[in-house]
Amino acid sequence: MTGTPRTGPVVVTGGAGAVGSVLVRALLADGASVRVIDNLSAGRREHLPPADTQRLSLTVADLKRPREYSTALKGATSIWHLAANTDIRKAGRAGPRLDFEEGVIASLRLLDEARRRDVPLVRFSSSSVVYGLPTVFPTPEDYGPLAPESFYGAGKLAVEGFLSAYAHNYGFTAHIFRFANIIGPGMTHGVLYDFFAKLEATPDRLEVLGDGRQSKSYLRTEDCVEGMLLAAERARAPVNVLNLGAPDRISVREIAEKVVAAHGGRARIEYTGGPRGWVGDVPQQWLAIDRIRALGWSPRHSSAEAVDRTIAEMVASRAGRA
Amino acid sequence: MTGTPRTGPVVVTGGAGAVGSVLVRALLADGASVRVIDNLSAGRREHLPPADTQRLSLTVADLKRPREYSTALKGATSIWHLAANTDIRKAGRAGPRLDFEEGVIASLRLLDEARRRDVPLVRFSSSSVVYGLPTVFPTPEDYGPLAPESFYGAGKLAVEGFLSAYAHNYGFTAHIFRFANIIGPGMTHGVLYDFFAKLEATPDRLEVLGDGRQSKSYLRTEDCVEGMLLAAERARAPVNVLNLGAPDRISVREIAEKVVAAHGGRARIEYTGGPRGWVGDVPQQWLAIDRIRALGWSPRHSSAEAVDRTIAEMVASRAGRA
Repeated sequence: MTGTPRTGPVVVTGGAGAVGSVLVRALLADGASVRVIDNLSAGRREHLPPADTQRLSLTVADLKRPREYSTALKGATSIWHLAANTDIRKAGRAGPRLDFEEGVIASLRLLDEARRRDVPLVRFSSSSVVYGLPTVFPTPEDYGPLAPESFYGAGKLAVEGFLSAYAHNYGFTAHIFRFANIIGPGMTHGVLYDFFAKLEATPDRLEVLGDGRQSKSYLRTEDCVEGMLLAAERARAPVNVLNLGAPDRISVREIAEKVVAAHGGRARIEYTGGPRGWVGDVPQQWLAIDRIRALGWSPRHSSAEAVDRTIAEMVASRAGRA
Repeated sequence: MTGTPRTGPVVVTGGAGAVGSVLVRALLADGASVRVIDNLSAGRREHLPPADTQRLSLTVADLKRPREYSTALKGATSIWHLAANTDIRKAGRAGPRLDFEEGVIASLRLLDEARRRDVPLVRFSSSSVVYGLPTVFPTPEDYGPLAPESFYGAGKLAVEGFLSAYAHNYGFTAHIFRFANIIGPGMTHGVLYDFFAKLEATPDRLEVLGDGRQSKSYLRTEDCVEGMLLAAERARAPVNVLNLGAPDRISVREIAEKVVAAHGGRARIEYTGGPRGWVGDVPQQWLAIDRIRALGWSPRHSSAEAVDRTIAEMVASRAGRA
């Protein structure tokens, strides 16, 4: 199914993360050899299947320091570059530095090394936040101008641009996936993670940032990975820009109510008010997915189904821990 | 005319360059105090009027080292950020490093310093090359996706994104000008500069990169400066993205014929062939200028007039030197 080249190993940066580890399992299931590079800041070794020296390796390395991981690129046929600081909100509070260093500089050092090692096939997890506050919904890939709200979005846009120039100057093939909110097991941030953490701390009260009318598209991790694998096989331009989201969206208010119901239904929901959750938040996010659909992919879950399933998993995991 | 705030000095990076120095003169003529920051790599001290300690200062500094120029930002009301490596072709051959360091890192250090010094009004010279190889002509500002061909274009796009995030996170107002080819006195590169240099070396023969059918819009420096000043006054969104070009375009073949005619008409024109002048070249460039026209600006020269006038100046300057 996946079109993974069988001629050499595949590199996955951020492969121990919530999305990366699902991708790694899919690649392994497809018969590929996989080399994970992860600094384990958000990723966790336990997300990966037990390392098999033949088919799976993990290099714990900082992408800004190519010496730490250069050999993992040797002989590789493609790179899935998923590593990133993934907490937009936290990074925003820290100013531009974190997204610039961990997003842009780390990515450009990786591209430089990919060129040196002759691995000219790069798939990159960009984000819907490159669109800024779009005025067209669902937002197509050709929407412009791109005026990101967050430094995270600015960093993703910067890497998109350099990856495009690598494609045109050095013959790279680039797949740029602009993710909706991706949810599933192993998350370390995001609205569901936050809501569960808040209810653990104060079970009778759920504070929701903003007025709850923020409305976004949520895609399950496994749908996201399936879409990427299929598009990587079928989209063959030098630069392929593809939205990856669910067909619909769901409001933060609905999510809050679902989480409270899953917690026994007794918590009072309190909204801090205002259209945005935080500075840099994009309150309305809904991506047009016609382009990737035309390649033959459709998500198996709607946004509501993705949220329901993820809540159920989180409740089960919490029960397991109790 | 220009809406330059009269309450404090204006900073111009790259103010000793071909565009910057024309902007500096316009600002001075309008009564502003101007602080130029320039590393004099492409800019030249002689481009500036004699420094007047009251109204004009020049700080020779590298934007990557804020300590060298931080005091020039103190009390300033706005920054015109025009400094850049401007030779796309040369930079492309050097790989991504030059555009990343001189374009992206230098710009982000400047923005960081602008924030520290509370100068939240930044006008930035971006470029038509952020559009990559557009399929729509004339190309509007909302064209997408942005897939730049050159590292220069990738660098400009990266700075656009971070400037947008500065606007949204720190209350900056950003004017992003996407330049067509800007021509006029004081150029250090570009097609006219190249053609004149080639004819000086071999007067009977003009080698033209590509098939000569590359066709682009050329804007005179003074038109460009007038457009920027007017738009900076009238466009008031947090992030204003504006194309700046001539209403029409002209082919490289026509330009070559004009240059040869100005040189006595005896040189033979030889085309190296192929649709592009060099790797990373954008052979067709023509920007929609409806948006800035709606603000009340129109260029005084067509592309052909801009080329004619610039050729006449270059011939006169050459005669002066002879």
